[in-house]
Amino acid sequence: MMNITFVDIIEFIGTFAFAISGIRLASAKQFDLFGAYVVGLVTAIGGGTIRDLLIGITPFWMTDPIYLIITAFSLVWVMAFRKYLVKMNNTIFLFDAIGLALFAVVGIQKTLDAGFPLWVATIMGTMTGAAGGVLRDVFINEVPLIFRKDIYAMACVMGGFAYWVCSLIGCDSIVTQITCGICVFLTRVLAVRFHISLPILKGEENN
Amino acid sequence: MMNITFVDIIEFIGTFAFAISGIRLASAKQFDLFGAYVVGLVTAIGGGTIRDLLIGITPFWMTDPIYLIITAFSLVWVMAFRKYLVKMNNTIFLFDAIGLALFAVVGIQKTLDAGFPLWVATIMGTMTGAAGGVLRDVFINEVPLIFRKDIYAMACVMGGFAYWVCSLIGCDSIVTQITCGICVFLTRVLAVRFHISLPILKGEENN
Amino acid sequence: MMNITFVDIIEFIGTFAFAISGIRLASAKQFDLFGAYVVGLVTAIGGGTIRDLLIGITPFWMTDPIYLIITAFSLVWVMAFRKYLVKMNNTIFLFDAIGLALFAVVGIQKTLDAGFPLWVATIMGTMTGAAGGVLRDVFINEVPLIFRKDIYAMACVMGGFAYWVCSLIGCDSIVTQITCGICVFLTRVLAVRFHISLPILKGEENN
Repeated sequence: MMNITFVDIIEFIGTFAFAISGIRLASAKQFDLFGAYVVGLVTAIGGGTIRDLLIGITPFWMTDPIYLIITAFSLVWVMAFRKYLVKMNNTIFLFDAIGLALFAVVGIQKTLDAGFPLWVATIMGTMTGAAGGVLRDVFINEVPLIFRKDIYAMACVMGGFAYWVCSLIGCDSIVTQITCGICVFLTRVLAVRFHISLPILKGEENN
Repeated sequence: MMNITFVDIIEFIGTFAFAISGIRLASAKQFDLFGAYVVGLVTAIGGGTIRDLLIGITPFWMTDPIYLIITAFSLVWVMAFRKYLVKMNNTIFLFDAIGLALFAVVGIQKTLDAGFPLWVATIMGTMTGAAGGVLRDVFINEVPLIFRKDIYAMACVMGGFAYWVCSLIGCDSIVTQITCGICVFLTRVLAVRFHISLPILKGEENN
Repeated sequence: MMNITFVDIIEFIGTFAFAISGIRLASAKQFDLFGAYVVGLVTAIGGGTIRDLLIGITPFWMTDPIYLIITAFSLVWVMAFRKYLVKMNNTIFLFDAIGLALFAVVGIQKTLDAGFPLWVATIMGTMTGAAGGVLRDVFINEVPLIFRKDIYAMACVMGGFAYWVCSLIGCDSIVTQITCGICVFLTRVLAVRFHISLPILKGEENN
């Protein structure tokens, strides 16, 4: 805990933003404080937990209580500033996009370090960024948002693609990771800014 | 199977009560017999299974078919006594609270034995007691009950706290576990008796 | 990838049919292309992934990208032929039943190979065949279909029973597996053909 790096700080910001998103949706559903805390926590750590189970390592949050503490801080934050949260929407959106980028990079890197190929790592990076939100939506009993609108998970896939290009042209590890993260962040921010979304899959009824 | 201890008997009672709760909710949703059995089983063993996956050991029910047999017995019980189940509500509630207490103690102990610190063990104890009910509610497509009302999971957190206090003052292992279990049981029973619940997290709309 | 066996081809057909079922249900819920792909993928590989996590091995799809490719092919197929899919229902049903049979056999065999007894293997075979559909239904926010109607998961249980009988009378491994698969397939097809289903568990209200 003594050596907090720049990456740690970004990860804490991402955890904070992810937890806020879970807690706000839980409050809209009249959850109690415990329920809101759990939904916030699952949103923040759910993706990384599934990733760690799949690649066969101990879930990251079980070695350091900081993620639980940040989620508690998020809960207090939402309770204290609930009247002003709407005005903070742009800031929270930026934090969320920064978190998404970092979670994707961390997910890709951890999976590569565990000996898997890049296509698996890209899936794990996407899962790290997006699966927490899916669990959140399952818990509040809604159809997962990322399946219906917005470029969110696809931004992580783009990051995996950037990682692959950087590796191909021989960038070193730090440059590759930064490029990957910037690619995720920009894809996410530009998609929202210009209202870009994936086409809906047409059903069999509508012609 | 020859040496059935007192703890085993309590565990069977808890499994029975948890399975009953899943099967009853499944029957209210018009599930068929297979669906009701699966929901009962998941309610009873789901929490312990997630715990074992997270701490990296083989899920407990895969080494002994007794949990499947008890769930089958629960299904027959619900079918045979369905007209009288409402009258048994107090007994079933007590069985459920006893099960919750034991599941929490077992979850904490197994996690400590696997080498994790007490704060991880408290989470795992809570998960052992409460995650099965969350899976049950996801399967019957309802918002998980424990997120909205009642002191249920929080009783397990109180048990973890009692465990910590007992360890601090140097109680031996058996005393610590019994105190922990009694604390979970009493918190649960008193909360229901006196209608104590956590405050709802206010949404951004209501002022 | 060079040595594609007969079993591989059946597995690809099953993956294709399972993915189609997920993608079609996602399209009925207005999912975007990414959401439809993920739901298709989860339907196809979800059961095997849970099985591999429970028996403690690396999830099968992480060693070969073919399952992701087949799901992408399924998505293109649904987009190209969406007006004709209803007419293909019988073919897709047959593919699905073939897939169910093979997934059950593979699930049983992998679990036995990992050293577990047959009753665990039967559960894992059932999970391999049926848990993907449960995850699919949770993601599209519906009560899982297999809990309410149709002999689907029960066909896998019948397959486990056939496996047990074959082992008892001393059949060799290939004969046992083929008998098991045929038993799953026939149970499924005959149940649908003759509208056989399990009884609904009566609730406490209806008398």
